[in-house]
Amino acid sequence: MTPVWRRIAFVLVSVAALAGAVASMVPASGQADGEAAPIFGVRIPPGYRDWRLISVAHEEGKLNDLRAILGNDVAIEASRDGTLPYPDGTIIARLAWSYDPLAESARAFGSPQSFVAGPPKNGVQYMVKDSRKHASTGGWGFAQFDDGKPASEAVHNACFACHETVKTRDFVFNRYAP
Amino acid sequence: MTPVWRRIAFVLVSVAALAGAVASMVPASGQADGEAAPIFGVRIPPGYRDWRLISVAHEEGKLNDLRAILGNDVAIEASRDGTLPYPDGTIIARLAWSYDPLAESARAFGSPQSFVAGPPKNGVQYMVKDSRKHASTGGWGFAQFDDGKPASEAVHNACFACHETVKTRDFVFNRYAP
Repeated sequence: MTPVWRRIAFVLVSVAALAGAVASMVPASGQADGEAAPIFGVRIPPGYRDWRLISVAHEEGKLNDLRAILGNDVAIEASRDGTLPYPDGTIIARLAWSYDPLAESARAFGSPQSFVAGPPKNGVQYMVKDSRKHASTGGWGFAQFDDGKPASEAVHNACFACHETVKTRDFVFNRYAP
Repeated sequence: MTPVWRRIAFVLVSVAALAGAVASMVPASGQADGEAAPIFGVRIPPGYRDWRLISVAHEEGKLNDLRAILGNDVAIEASRDGTLPYPDGTIIARLAWSYDPLAESARAFGSPQSFVAGPPKNGVQYMVKDSRKHASTGGWGFAQFDDGKPASEAVHNACFACHETVKTRDFVFNRYAP
């Protein structure tokens, strides 16, 4: 019979191997399989809706939405510490929803004053830091997906030009909301 | 000399005991030690800033803030599934920040249109579901902390009256933003 310690060691090694196998199913970039956005080749990162919150915003004008900025662990850590430039592996996700008045709150407060997130709007955008791959755009790859489908090349051509206005903040508009 | 398998078993048992000891430092309610808010006795839940996002909102008028609703795992699951009433153990956190125009975005877009989260404002509020403990207020305990200190009893007296307007949604104003 195999000694007990050998069986325990076998179990431990098997668990480690299984963990390794599971980890290898997700590419090192943290990006899932799926259609790649034009120009930068960025794909929708798996599990991004579970990421932690960096900040929130409201866009007036044509965009007219409520938005949330989420970040993967690298992004959250860098945002909290104010690390610039953001390290490779950073992924920032910008979600947005319709800017809708909340009727129940108007009743509670006696006048309309609460605006809440309605259905998704203006797509979901990602910034992925890979200083080698995206060297010509400040190390960032940009992507927008509308209903899970990559937006046009024209849309993606506009990303960097706009984000260049915040070059001193490593091309990132948002700041961590404590 | 102690056999190897005994030593391995000892390490495993020690690790399990340590994990148990650490777990026992956090009360079963998931709430940290710290000053309790009046009336409901709710304390600031540990690690709430790392919780996942339920939704976002903008309050106009006197409140004039941008806010995010975060939830612990029970809250996120219930919100996503539309489970009503929310199960015991649900904790919902409402964070809020000053509603600030973003100068860099005004430059990028050619006119002011982006409003972002500034410094924290209007305290942090929590709703904690415990259908026995808070039976007289729909099963919810309410709390507001300003700079980490519980708000007054008067503030806490106002919570339930307002949330009663959304009794059909188990007293919760927010809806999950996909």
